[in-house]
Amino acid sequence: MNNNPIGIFDSGIGGLTVVKEILKELPSENIIYLGDTARVPYGTRGKEVITKFALDLANFLLKKKVKFLVVSCNTISSICLDVIEYISPVPVLGVIQPAVDEALKTTRSGVIGVIGTPATIASKIYEKKLKRKNPKLKVKTVSCPLFVPLAEEGLINHAATKLVAKEYLKGFKNNGIDTLILGCTHYPILRSIIQQTVGPKVTLIDSAKPTAKKLNELLEEKNLLRSEEKVRHEFFVTDAPERVYKVADNFFGDHLNGKLKEINLPIA
Amino acid sequence: MNNNPIGIFDSGIGGLTVVKEILKELPSENIIYLGDTARVPYGTRGKEVITKFALDLANFLLKKKVKFLVVSCNTISSICLDVIEYISPVPVLGVIQPAVDEALKTTRSGVIGVIGTPATIASKIYEKKLKRKNPKLKVKTVSCPLFVPLAEEGLINHAATKLVAKEYLKGFKNNGIDTLILGCTHYPILRSIIQQTVGPKVTLIDSAKPTAKKLNELLEEKNLLRSEEKVRHEFFVTDAPERVYKVADNFFGDHLNGKLKEINLPIA
Repeated sequence: MNNNPIGIFDSGIGGLTVVKEILKELPSENIIYLGDTARVPYGTRGKEVITKFALDLANFLLKKKVKFLVVSCNTISSICLDVIEYISPVPVLGVIQPAVDEALKTTRSGVIGVIGTPATIASKIYEKKLKRKNPKLKVKTVSCPLFVPLAEEGLINHAATKLVAKEYLKGFKNNGIDTLILGCTHYPILRSIIQQTVGPKVTLIDSAKPTAKKLNELLEEKNLLRSEEKVRHEFFVTDAPERVYKVADNFFGDHLNGKLKEINLPIA
Repeated sequence: MNNNPIGIFDSGIGGLTVVKEILKELPSENIIYLGDTARVPYGTRGKEVITKFALDLANFLLKKKVKFLVVSCNTISSICLDVIEYISPVPVLGVIQPAVDEALKTTRSGVIGVIGTPATIASKIYEKKLKRKNPKLKVKTVSCPLFVPLAEEGLINHAATKLVAKEYLKGFKNNGIDTLILGCTHYPILRSIIQQTVGPKVTLIDSAKPTAKKLNELLEEKNLLRSEEKVRHEFFVTDAPERVYKVADNFFGDHLNGKLKEINLPIA
């Protein structure tokens, strides 16, 4: 069992930012990644569709005999982590709780900002989880739908992205937040513009590292750590036109080049 | 047969701009629209995936006994109109040829610009069809991937949209075009910014009206026109969260409010 891979799935290739941290944190683990590039983005869709698509992905990885499921996408983690836990015979980790725990450790002012896709923000999951730990916290949320296409198009330091960021984040200017959760795997790509816009005093929290650390803890706790040195990673996507490779490189680095395998829909 | 509806399908709700013109041009026809809002956008995906998704949509409408299929999406029309014609027992009309014919009638300088999604532009279909009619024409094409999310988010007169338009369209400034084909149903929503950016001397061609006129001609030619007055239209989408209604209104007008019916995937 310990030799089995960790399965990581995502609405697209944003989750590669999480994979990168997992490979650093757990260099002896085999991983299988599945990104639904044929149906990305999920963050603007309805709950039933997101759940249906996410179950397709989880079932593909479960058939590959993974020992653990990581949901690297904030939208899926927000909308249907409970459904995935219900159907999964192996443990499941989403990206929301690790980011929430990190934000709770970070804040001094007790006012936390959260940005995410429309589906994530509408789910109110961050407010619920933050306030469950500390009901006195103030939580301010904003959905930023254009950040995903802007990051995917590589407009990382573009004036248009600055204008969009200024508009989305204007409410955070003087509302007391000292911590901002980047509640979408695409947003760290725009970290520099987001930091500029909210000012240097706000700490940005990105779920990738806390999720990798939490996964390490859970594997240890459940005696699931692998110790062999030789590793084998697999990267699957549901659609791989030229642009997906380009964007994947932006999220992961050059090492991924040419390693994406395309699988057909319906996923089975 | 003449009483049967016209089937119109699209990657999302952009095709409602075409439906609007068809209802004006052919007020006695019944229409059934199907928009794949659960898997939109198509324009950034690969050829196999676009074809597979498009066939799902065509087959749904064919089962509804439509007398004619209209492909209102430029991406689908560019990538796989031939495959749809091959499987369809009823005539099929895409949006490329009507826009091409209109551009050929319009240009004086013989230099025509085309903007579209990455998939449409990569297919080179506009160049091929324009040059087939007139090999001396010069055709300049640019893909504008961010125009779709900007239009969907309603940033119709936003400074960020102006900056993005300026960047995408800078090559059209002094390259002699007098006609620009808006090769995506979303782009007419941004018509005013596009016109400002390319200047008042360039005529913008939008496929909605030419497609409606061509459909009228073809129905007449094939003796398929319906003459009864009482009409019944149906609008299907594969996902209908709140935001889809909002965007649909932008593309079609208030009359559609609440009329979208959601069907489940897989489409059958």
